This record gives sequence, structure tokens and C-alpha cells, in this order.
Amino acid sequence: LRENKVISDPAWLPLHGPLDIYRKKASFNWKDMLHFIDGAEVLAFKQHVFKTLENDPLFARQPGEDIPVEKMRELTFLRVKQLFRYDFITKEETMANPWKTVVLSDCLGMYDWAMSAKFFLNKGMFGATIANSGSGRHGTYVESTENMTTFGCFALTELSHGSNTRAMRTTATYDPSTQEFVINSPDFEAAKFWVGNLGKTATHAVVFAQLYTPDHVCHGLHSFIVPVRDPKTLLTLPGVLVGDIGKKLGQNGLDNGFALFHNVKIPRENLLNKTGDVTPDGRYVTPFKDPNKRFGASLGALSGGRVSITRMALVNLKLALVVAIRFSATRRQFGPKDAEEIPVLEYQLQQWRLIPYLATAYALEHFSKSIFMNFVEFQIGQIMRNNSDRQAEMGREIHAIGCSSKPLGSWTAQSGIQECREACGGHGYLAMNRLGVLRDDNDPNCTYEGDNNVLLQQTSNYLLSWLHAKHHDGVRIESPFHSVDFLEDFHKILGSEFTSVYSLLSFISVPLAAYKWLVCFLLEESQKRLEQQRALYKDDFEASNNSQVYYCRSLAIAYIEHNCLQRFHEQTTDQDTPTSLRPVLSKLCALYGLWSLSKHMATLYQGVYRTLYMAILALCSQLKDDAVALVDVFAPTDFILNSPIGNADGQLYRNLWSTVMQGSEVVNRPSWWKEFCSDKPVVGSLRSKL
Amino acid sequence: LRENKVISDPAWLPLHGPLDIYRKKASFNWKDMLHFIDGAEVLAFKQHVFKTLENDPLFARQPGEDIPVEKMRELTFLRVKQLFRYDFITKEETMANPWKTVVLSDCLGMYDWAMSAKFFLNKGMFGATIANSGSGRHGTYVESTENMTTFGCFALTELSHGSNTRAMRTTATYDPSTQEFVINSPDFEAAKFWVGNLGKTATHAVVFAQLYTPDHVCHGLHSFIVPVRDPKTLLTLPGVLVGDIGKKLGQNGLDNGFALFHNVKIPRENLLNKTGDVTPDGRYVTPFKDPNKRFGASLGALSGGRVSITRMALVNLKLALVVAIRFSATRRQFGPKDAEEIPVLEYQLQQWRLIPYLATAYALEHFSKSIFMNFVEFQIGQIMRNNSDRQAEMGREIHAIGCSSKPLGSWTAQSGIQECREACGGHGYLAMNRLGVLRDDNDPNCTYEGDNNVLLQQTSNYLLSWLHAKHHDGVRIESPFHSVDFLEDFHKILGSEFTSVYSLLSFISVPLAAYKWLVCFLLEESQKRLEQQRALYKDDFEASNNSQVYYCRSLAIAYIEHNCLQRFHEQTTDQDTPTSLRPVLSKLCALYGLWSLSKHMATLYQGVYRTLYMAILALCSQLKDDAVALVDVFAPTDFILNSPIGNADGQLYRNLWSTVMQGSEVVNRPSWWKEFCSDKPVVGSLRSKL
Repeated sequence: LRENKVISDPAWLPLHGPLDIYRKKASFNWKDMLHFIDGAEVLAFKQHVFKTLENDPLFARQPGEDIPVEKMRELTFLRVKQLFRYDFITKEETMANPWKTVVLSDCLGMYDWAMSAKFFLNKGMFGATIANSGSGRHGTYVESTENMTTFGCFALTELSHGSNTRAMRTTATYDPSTQEFVINSPDFEAAKFWVGNLGKTATHAVVFAQLYTPDHVCHGLHSFIVPVRDPKTLLTLPGVLVGDIGKKLGQNGLDNGFALFHNVKIPRENLLNKTGDVTPDGRYVTPFKDPNKRFGASLGALSGGRVSITRMALVNLKLALVVAIRFSATRRQFGPKDAEEIPVLEYQLQQWRLIPYLATAYALEHFSKSIFMNFVEFQIGQIMRNNSDRQAEMGREIHAIGCSSKPLGSWTAQSGIQECREACGGHGYLAMNRLGVLRDDNDPNCTYEGDNNVLLQQTSNYLLSWLHAKHHDGVRIESPFHSVDFLEDFHKILGSEFTSVYSLLSFISVPLAAYKWLVCFLLEESQKRLEQQRALYKDDFEASNNSQVYYCRSLAIAYIEHNCLQRFHEQTTDQDTPTSLRPVLSKLCALYGLWSLSKHMATLYQGVYRTLYMAILALCSQLKDDAVALVDVFAPTDFILNSPIGNADGQLYRNLWSTVMQGSEVVNRPSWWKEFCSDKPVVGSLRSKL
Repeated sequence: LRENKVISDPAWLPLHGPLDIYRKKASFNWKDMLHFIDGAEVLAFKQHVFKTLENDPLFARQPGEDIPVEKMRELTFLRVKQLFRYDFITKEETMANPWKTVVLSDCLGMYDWAMSAKFFLNKGMFGATIANSGSGRHGTYVESTENMTTFGCFALTELSHGSNTRAMRTTATYDPSTQEFVINSPDFEAAKFWVGNLGKTATHAVVFAQLYTPDHVCHGLHSFIVPVRDPKTLLTLPGVLVGDIGKKLGQNGLDNGFALFHNVKIPRENLLNKTGDVTPDGRYVTPFKDPNKRFGASLGALSGGRVSITRMALVNLKLALVVAIRFSATRRQFGPKDAEEIPVLEYQLQQWRLIPYLATAYALEHFSKSIFMNFVEFQIGQIMRNNSDRQAEMGREIHAIGCSSKPLGSWTAQSGIQECREACGGHGYLAMNRLGVLRDDNDPNCTYEGDNNVLLQQTSNYLLSWLHAKHHDGVRIESPFHSVDFLEDFHKILGSEFTSVYSLLSFISVPLAAYKWLVCFLLEESQKRLEQQRALYKDDFEASNNSQVYYCRSLAIAYIEHNCLQRFHEQTTDQDTPTSLRPVLSKLCALYGLWSLSKHMATLYQGVYRTLYMAILALCSQLKDDAVALVDVFAPTDFILNSPIGNADGQLYRNLWSTVMQGSEVVNRPSWWKEFCSDKPVVGSLRSKL
């Protein structure tokens, strides 16, 4: 009864208007669906967050507003500060229901991802990294983020290194005489770069640096808490050069920054010492024997990010679809002769452009929640210091899932938003209609926490290792979250049922079966290609690189699409799913499956078209040495080109760095520094009961 | 010798730097290629334009600069004014070498498309429309654009109509008592909308309106010259409500505007009377008997736009590739164990992401020039009032080419730029590196001058009409620009050589042959589908709509890709192509052909997968009535959604209109109005000899 009460008050839907026609035609009750997906508690919470922001003038916006970057940074900071006052979820509530944090992130992200990022980078990323990689001695840092005394950031990437994290060049050298670490950036190419919150506001950074003991031995990458700005004045601390990297394609409310360190001294205790510590006299001690394992463990703290990004991308796709579907239902253009114009949604072409994305959004809705729950299960094990094999396997599997779900989500959202933009024609190109912001804000999801293409290698490696284990050690293929269990039937799937593409056809009505075949097939082909390349080059690095396009990359994508479809199928057929919703959910599930599968048609025939694909790769490789000269032919002068990373002199980092440094506000303390330093928010002072 | 002198001074390439490695590895001499593509005169002209802009402080920019929209509009206007002074191409030079106008557009567009658009919309679009649709009595309007006394715009689209141009609702009613037309907008949904230059600066508009004679007969859409602002003060004229539609996703230097007319009176002579005129006493006279033909002729003036957009999109793709290839050649990440890190261009995956686009850019380079020359040939016939069948056929063919080359160019650029953005990782997401601007500025190429998907129907209709003429009237298929000539062998191509997909395989080494087969196959399938749908619905409108996805759309795309490949192949094998360049051009041509073909693999097997495709369409159609409800489930409140076209009340145009009207600067005269009204540029005062 209470549930019905909440839903009977759908504050965000007016009762009558031009959309009535379609709302009446719908085959299901949208309130039932909403309740099924969210449940009463989450629904009430969402409404509460939405209404709170809408009622607070600080969050008021003008559609298509044109706010300077510097002002946007300030406004976003002020809004984040206000979020501390609202304190929408207390620590206890997060523990009781971790999903609610995702819901809050959804709500804040729907409003503005830069604000959401700024908020969670401090509270979540900075705090969580310290909690996961540090020890008891670092507790005060976590606590001080709660009331904004400390404002944190996470400083891993450098100007010249992103994906290759091990190659970071910042150093932390221990000095036993003062019991301090001395942090240094060897040169500007090693400047920490792209760090969210570091541009204007961060007082502290978790800095990843190569740890050197007094005996000049390097113990690899470790993380350190480094104060960068005086929390009272926001002025930079001695030895630190910190600044804002400038305007980005989107998310300009978030201040991404850089930092260069010159003999910056921090106490020995600021080393986050979970995976390794240095004794006061300068000896390195670690519970790990294998430095590779230690490295893996220290990066383990990042795993949740990719699962979250999958969800963030979905939220963007959903917003774009809300806009494009409503537009298409009310925009009328052409019609049968002498008759009224019809809504563009009635055109098959428009349906074909938008509705598969709608089906995908419903598939990802369940999928993103489902993998988040997997991640929570893994996290609980970590917190409980569970050392079982199963716990380790969960870690491997959630890593493989996250490394492919992020590409799946972010790419689908990026192409879906673009399709929505075009489907809305000129009106979609007006800033006030938001599709541009959605595209720009979604775009970095393809890049941060690992370039999508690079991440997919992690997933294909995981799958290949299972095949290897089965073939060489007779291991049974079975994983904690069951995403690979069907590979146990590898030979059966490839053998009896789908000997030819034509027989596969009869299984089109069962996209799941077709997908299982596809994954097995790609796994086998990837394996063959890898072995062939190894035989050719006698070099694993080369062999692995030359197996990505065909077929490791496709393998990873097919694997995660299969998993997404599998989970959606399970939801659709679950006994707890209301019978009134099953017909529409079944159609969405079938459309998602078929549409995703249709993008693999070419791969299904790869055997036949191997020649074609190989020719494409061979030509790419033959032309790569000509590529620079080929673009030199195109290139206008650097003045016209206007892109530091594309300058004709190829001084990539020098140009980038000097352009950043030429920015007018680059190292200035923000004009609104007092808003940070004094008048701290009383946490929860604006918090209201639901 | 003179040629060598120009090229030996490639002002935009430094001699030494990190790119040397690749420049030395190149298999060809880039200066030879540059000379081959551009020739000495064009090269010198390009250098001159580039250097002129670079040396003029008015064109100075700060990388990643953050300029408010209002300021951007002003700055762009001032730069356009300066272009009048430079007068890079005189009218005579344009007549002597029309290609130079394209080169100028390339150069200005490489700098900023909004500036280029603002300049050419006045001089080209407004002036050309009057020249083509008017008569001697309108000459002064064309002349007064030359020195900026008049600043013109082209007002066709309305708030609620774009693609369906015939449905425009603005009226022009003739009043014989005053010998004036009275222009009226029935309501805000009929407001002229999206009109470039109208937001801030236009003094005159070519307005498309339904012409009514005093006997209340409507004679269909005609165009009129309507003064909208006082050229002396830039204040709006009586009866006109004109304003700026606000911030867009890109091209914010261009002021797109709206206009509402309330009893605005213009002299009878302001009717552009080429296709129809009204006598002083109010009788309608026209050289055309069929109003459809008249309508077609009046829209004929638009045809050149799509050919130009193909080129504009290419320029964007080229700039993005310059940035991404140079970045990939200098960015190093990972490497074989214990060895130096290698440039990311060495990775097969990175090659596969970028190099096919590079090949496409070279294919489009020749193609865009080649179709422009076709268009010039057609235009000359028009100017000469050539009434031959061949001239009419040229018109039909260039229309079919433009309607598919614009989608080909704009979509390829859009996806290519996105790939380049992602291929540059985080640094690609920094505004200063320009990939965002390129993406945003290219995006409207998919929409204006006709939505890509809608335009493709024109091309497929053209092809279907050829097939029909051959089958029913025994006509020989042969067109002035030869793009359809191979269809004469329709049965032979489909019959003997390519009876099965497997035999097609052996022709993979000849992508051109495979493409010919593909076009014939899709033409046949489109025809079949259309007939089947006609039999089903007894309704051409429905039948045509249901034949777009499968296969009219693919047909049009395959046709234009074939044509592009064909022309590239001809260039590659041409005797005048320097032998030293042929090897690299052949590789580029092969890669372009194979890569484009690889995107049609699924279609090649469509017979097999018909079931799958039909299931996708059926599901789309079944779900369309649920689509609004399905997004209602997703939708946050309107405040959070923040998109007038996506509001829950579905009041599409009311919301859009009221949001536009809420803009703070919407109807204000620009603060810099005096810069327009006085201090007119002395045309050519900054012009220099090359």
C-alpha cells in the first residue's frame, strides 16, 4: 500500500498532453515497470533528491546556458559543498544498502556528471583508496573528507603515461635521517596530469610514485598521501607546482589538474602501506613476495570504477533516449497524401534508429545493477580479508567483467547519443536540448579507468586463460558469477549443433544459443591466431598485439554482450518478474539479443572472409610508415591546425605542457577560495527526512 | 621550376623533430603528393591565406580558449568583415577557376567553420539564391552583399518543419491596392528557425512562403526578399520579431536566428520571380505548368550545398587525422619487455583504428573535387539556359550524387573524428587539442541541407527509377557522369559471375567488382521489397517507408561508395598520376575499397539472414507504441532532464519556443552593432598580391 502511494504520485509526469496518444497505446503500465525496476524505497529516494535539487536556487540553471569555465568550476564546487549539507546518504545507509550510493550517483549524474564526479572523487575515490591501500594510521584522512576539511584527489596518470601505469616516473625516496619520503617529478613529462579535483580545490593527493629506499633500490609503484595546498588558504605548498589543465570537451565543472613535485617532504607514515612498508631505518618490508602480485593488489582498489562507469554511461543513454523518443512521438513530418502529418516515430527508419538502443538500455539497466551486486559481494570478501580461492576467482572474474562492461556501456552510449542527436535533427543540435552535453560528458567514459580497446585485452586474456587451463590442466570451467560456465561445453557448442553457419540460422530464434556459439568460436579463433603469431614472431608481445583486432577484441565484446543478454533473459523469465511486464520485457530482450548479434554477422562468416580481413590488416601495416607523411600532405599550418598534440614538430608533450602553462588562470588560486576555506558546510544541516 | 620553388618552402613543416623517424620511413615524397593533389597555384594560394590569417592579430586565438557565445558571435563578425578587406578571391577569379572558392572555403573552414559559414551564407547562399531564383530587377541586392551594405540570410525551415519543405506555413498575400506582398507567420510553430546570420546581423532574408493571390488561391512555396533589420542601426523593422536561437553544440560564431512576421509589407518586385510571378493587378503567371516542376526548380538552387558539405566534412576528417596520426607517432606506451616503449602507431589495433580513415580521406579528397567539377558542369548549363535532355539528366544525377555524398562524407567524418578523439586518449579530451571542436562543428553536416537518412531516399529513388525505365521501357542505362552505367550489365553482374557469396570471394581482390555486384544486388532487393510492400499495403507512402532500412538506405550508401572507389581507382591508374605516387595511392585505394566493403559483409549475406533482419524490424514496430512509456520509466523530472524537446508534457514546440524566448540576449541588438553599421570594410583594402 505504501508502495502504491509513492508511485501514484509520479511528480514528474503530467497527466495530459500530446504524448497521451502513445501513453495510451502502451502495452504495459509504466508505473508497474518503474516499481519493478526500482522498488518503493529507491523511488522515493530518487524523487527526494530530484525535488531537493529543483527547490534549491543554487541548482537552478538556464537551458543552454553559457557559463565560463572558471565560473563553472566555482558553481560546481558550491553545489558540491551544498551536497555535504544535504548529506543524502549517511555512511550507515551506504553500508546497509550499497545500491543506494549508485542511485545517488545516478541522480547527481543526471543533473551534472562533473558535480557528481567532484563529489565522489573526494568522498569515494580518495577516501576509498586510502581505506583500501592504507592502514589504521591513515584513518584521520578518511574522516576529514567527510566534512570537507580535506578535499582529496587521486594522482596516478602522468603527462606521458596513462595505460602503462608501471612506467610512471614520479619518485618517492626515503630519507631515514628525517624519517620522510622526498617526492620528485624528474621532468614535466612526469607531471601528474588529468587529476580530477587537483586543478582548483584538492588539498591532498594520493600520489603514485616509484618507491626508493636509501640503498637506491626501486621497489615499484606505491601510493602516498601528499598535501598539495594549504586547506586554510588554498595556496600551494612549497615545492609543489599545481594547476588546472584547462578546458575539456565536457564536464567542465570538474577541475582536472596537474602537479610537479620538487623535493616535497612527507612523513614516512604517509605511505599507504597495505602492500609494502618502509621501516624507520629504511628497510622495505612487504607481505607479498612477487612484486607483480603486489602491483596487482595495489591497483585492485580501482576495480569498482569500471563497474560504476558502465552504469554512468547507461544513465547518459537513458537521458538521450528520453529526449529522442519523446521528440519522435511529437515531431510530425510528412504523411500519406492529403492526410495529416504523422509522428516521425511511425517511420520504420526512425524506429530502427532508436528502438534497438531503447532495448539495450533496458538490458543494461538490469545488467549494470547485477554486476554491481557481484562487485559488492567481492568487496565484502576483501573487507573480511577472505583469502579463499573463490575470493581470488571473484576478483579475476569481476575484473574481466568490468574491463568489458565499461567498453560495452560507454561505446553503446556514445553511439546511441549520437543517433539520438541526429534523430532530433536541427533541434537536437541546439545546446538547450542537452544532447551535446550528454555526448561530451559521456565521451571520457571511453577513456578514463583505461582506454576501452586496451581494457578489452584484459577480458580476452581471462577467457584465453580458462581455455588454456582446460586444455592443459583439465580444469573444469566454472566461475563464481557463472559468466564463463558455458565454455565447459566448448566442443559441444562448436561441434554438433553449429557445424555450419547455415545450421546456426535455425538458432536465430534463440539469440542466446547463437551468442554462446559466437563466443566459443571467437575464443578458438583467438587462440589459433595467437599461436600462429607466436610461431611467426617468437615474441609474446608482438603475438599478442597482432591478435587483438582479429579476434581478441571481438571475443571480449561478444563475451560481455552474451553475459548481458543472459542476465536480461534470466530477469525476463524470472518467476518474480510480474506477468504483466513479461511480454514487453521479452520483446526488449529479443530485440537486444538480435540487434547485438546482427553486428557480428561479419564475424560469423569470418572463415569465409579471412582473406579480406587479412588484407585489411596487411594494408594498414604497410601504410603506417606512410601515415605521418600522408597527413603532412593534408596538414595546414600549426596556427590553423590549432592543436598542440598535432603540431608539425611532433614535440607532443612540450607543446601540450607549454600550452597548459600559457593558460591565463592556470596556477591561480580560484577567486572563490574563501568559499572552500571558511564557511565549511555543516554536514547534514539541510538533510531532511523522506 | 616555379612549382618547385613554392613547394620547396613548405612553411608549415619544421625540418627536424620526433616525427623524423616516420617522415624518413615514408615510401613516397610528400611534396610530390602535395603538388599532385593541389598544384602550384592552389598551394601558393593556400599558403597565402594561412599566412594572412596567422599574421593578423584579429585572428589570434588562445588554444582551448573559453569565449562566451555572445563574444564569439561578435568576434566572428569582425573576422568576416576583415575577410571583405582581404578579398581573397575576386568575382572574376571565381569565374575563371571555381575550384578556388572551394579551396578558400577549405582554408577558412580549417580555421573556423562558423566564420566560413557566416561569410559564405551572405555572399554565396543569399546572393546565389537571388541570382538563380530572381531576375534582373534583383541585381542590386546581389551587388550590395559584396561590400556588406546588405547582409543576407536564407530563411526556409520553420520551427515545426524541416525536411517537409512543402509544408512550410509562412504566407505571402498579394495586395493589388498597394502592389505589395504581406508576409505573415500564422503562429510561433511557423516561425522561421535555424536561419544562419539571422540571429544578430542579417539585414535581409530570402523568405520562403506560400504565395496567395487576391482570389485566395495558394500557388505554393515561393521566395521573397524581406528586409528584417535597419542596416544603419541593426534595429528590427516594424512587424518583424527576430532573435537569436541561442547556444548550439558547435559553430557558435554563427548567429542562427528566428523570425516571426506580422503583416510585413514588401514591394511586389521582391518576389524572386524565375519560376512564377504576380502581375501588378494580382494575376499569377508562370512558365511552368506543373506546380511540382516549379517547386523542384525553385529548390534546385540548393543542390550545390550538399556537394560542398561533402568537402567540408572531409576537411574535418583530415584535420582530426593530422592530430591523431602525429599523436600516435610520438606517443609511446608499453613495449617489448626491457626494451624502449614504442609509438602507439606501431600497434596493429591503433593502425586498424586510424589508417582506414586515412585511406578514406584520400579517397574523398579526389572524389569531392571530382563531383564538384561535375556540379560546375551542370551549373554552367543552367547559366547558359541549356534546356537539353542531357542537362536535365545531369541535374538528376548530381542530385542523386549530392544526396548520398553528403551522408557518406558527414558520417565518415563524424565516426572518424570520434575514433581520433578516443585514439588520443585523455589528451584528445582536452579542448586545446581541438578534436571536440571538430566533432561539434562537423555534426550539423549530418543534418542541414537535409537529414542524411532522408536524403538517401532521393538517391535510391533515382536508382530504382533507372531500373524501372530499363525493365519497362527498355531504356539503356547511361548517365552524363557515368555513375550508373554499370547497371546496364545488371543481369550479367548478378547472374554469371557472382551466383553465390562464395564465388564473390574470389573477387575480393577486385573490390570494385564486388561493389558492382553489391549495388546490383541491393537494387534488386530494394525493388523486390518495395513491390512486396506495395502488394501488402496498397499504399506507396507506407511501401516506401517500409523499404528504407532494408534495403534502399544501404543501396544508396553502396552506390556512392562504389562511385567514390571507382573515381579513386581511375585516379590511381591514370597515366597523369606520377609513377612515384602510384604505389601508395594503390594501397590507399585498395584499403578504402576493402574496408568500406567489409562494412557490408552482413548485407552480402542478407539472403541468409533475412529472418534476423525481419525479426528486428518486427520487434521495432511492436515496441514503438511502448517506447514513450518505456522512457517515461527512465525519465527524471523535467528539471533534471533539462531538455525542452524532451519535456514530459510533450509540448515540443511550445517548450522550445518559450525556452528560446527566455534567453537573456535573445532579441537584443548586439552590443557591437556599430561595427556592422558604420566603418564598412573597404573591400580588398588588405588584399595583397601572392
